[in-house]
Amino acid sequence: MTRAVVLLSGGLDSATVLADARASGYECYALTVDYGQRHDAEIDAAKRLAESIGALEHRIVRIDYCHFGGSALTDSSIDVPTEPANGIPVTYVPARNTVMLSIALGWAEVVEATAIFIGVNAVDYSGYPDCRPAFIAAFEQLARVATKASVEGAQMTIRAPLIELSKAEIIARGLELGVDYAATVSCYQADPHGRACGRCDACRLRREGFAAAAVADPTRYC
Amino acid sequence: MTRAVVLLSGGLDSATVLADARASGYECYALTVDYGQRHDAEIDAAKRLAESIGALEHRIVRIDYCHFGGSALTDSSIDVPTEPANGIPVTYVPARNTVMLSIALGWAEVVEATAIFIGVNAVDYSGYPDCRPAFIAAFEQLARVATKASVEGAQMTIRAPLIELSKAEIIARGLELGVDYAATVSCYQADPHGRACGRCDACRLRREGFAAAAVADPTRYC
Repeated sequence: MTRAVVLLSGGLDSATVLADARASGYECYALTVDYGQRHDAEIDAAKRLAESIGALEHRIVRIDYCHFGGSALTDSSIDVPTEPANGIPVTYVPARNTVMLSIALGWAEVVEATAIFIGVNAVDYSGYPDCRPAFIAAFEQLARVATKASVEGAQMTIRAPLIELSKAEIIARGLELGVDYAATVSCYQADPHGRACGRCDACRLRREGFAAAAVADPTRYC
Repeated sequence: MTRAVVLLSGGLDSATVLADARASGYECYALTVDYGQRHDAEIDAAKRLAESIGALEHRIVRIDYCHFGGSALTDSSIDVPTEPANGIPVTYVPARNTVMLSIALGWAEVVEATAIFIGVNAVDYSGYPDCRPAFIAAFEQLARVATKASVEGAQMTIRAPLIELSKAEIIARGLELGVDYAATVSCYQADPHGRACGRCDACRLRREGFAAAAVADPTRYC
């Protein structure tokens, strides 16, 4: 069976991506990167989702990336905004998706996976540069020269199946695939029990997505 | 002054690169990535070199990358070879330079650096895919679409000043710049005091380099 490494944050998007990769016939190696997020609730959610959606393995890689600062998600002195931003918001973590895809590439090489799945989205992407199709294409080009497998002729593919979908379309797709969204945590500042603040950008996009998809919002709020 | 992030392992090559970046007029942010190497001797060497060569700051980022295995440098069940390999050797760490450059890119964005220096070498490179010019060029292309700074028009440059030099030429360049090679650790299996085994591939390339440069080898061997 064809193998894929799937980046799994524990949020709505990456849970949908894992279900999509499974439905596409991949044997899935779920990878959670803990880069110093404020709470562990997302990571706990990732563990449960990897099991329930059927990843073959789940690894959590820790990187003490937060001391660079530069983002509201890794620097407690910067408040998480509750209003939509103009331009790129302070929740952008410098080079985050580059770092996560790189780590995924390393594991992909070890397990001989031919694809890496990532839940980036260019529609509701909050202006993050590393959620754009041009970024994914450039990383794929890099992956095709970076590894031992690439020298030996293997072609790595970076798959971003949500990149052109709205949040409502993502939710509709995930429900078709049986994803339990009550088990996902999208909030930038969830409490230790994984309950969402209901006010941050991630909560707002998620709530609007359930409304637009015309399904009940199963999110557990504080 | 123009800023650069310089990847600094504590070995001969990266010490030379740091001195080169300083001599080129960059304010240097030295970055050591601890990905689970067998000993801390390299990291201790990096600390001393950052200070003596004159980095403005030095950060050590830890990533628990070693549990992926797949390399003699991160998996203690794989012996470090003492003979030259055919093809890509078992000391290759999957996606190592991709991960290290990605982390450097994150810090570069925070400190507003416009260049990242890395001591890869395509001559004595032991066959590593991520030491080739094509890899460096692909990472530079990625960096130019991956960051907030890139969206705002900044152009990140990846500099690999040693990429076409022989080990002897690197040593000659470093000695011109005043690098104290006795303070560097290249060995894949140095002891806790930073003394080299004298037998591994890295030791062999280094010893041959000093001989070819016709200078005394200052390496401390076990």
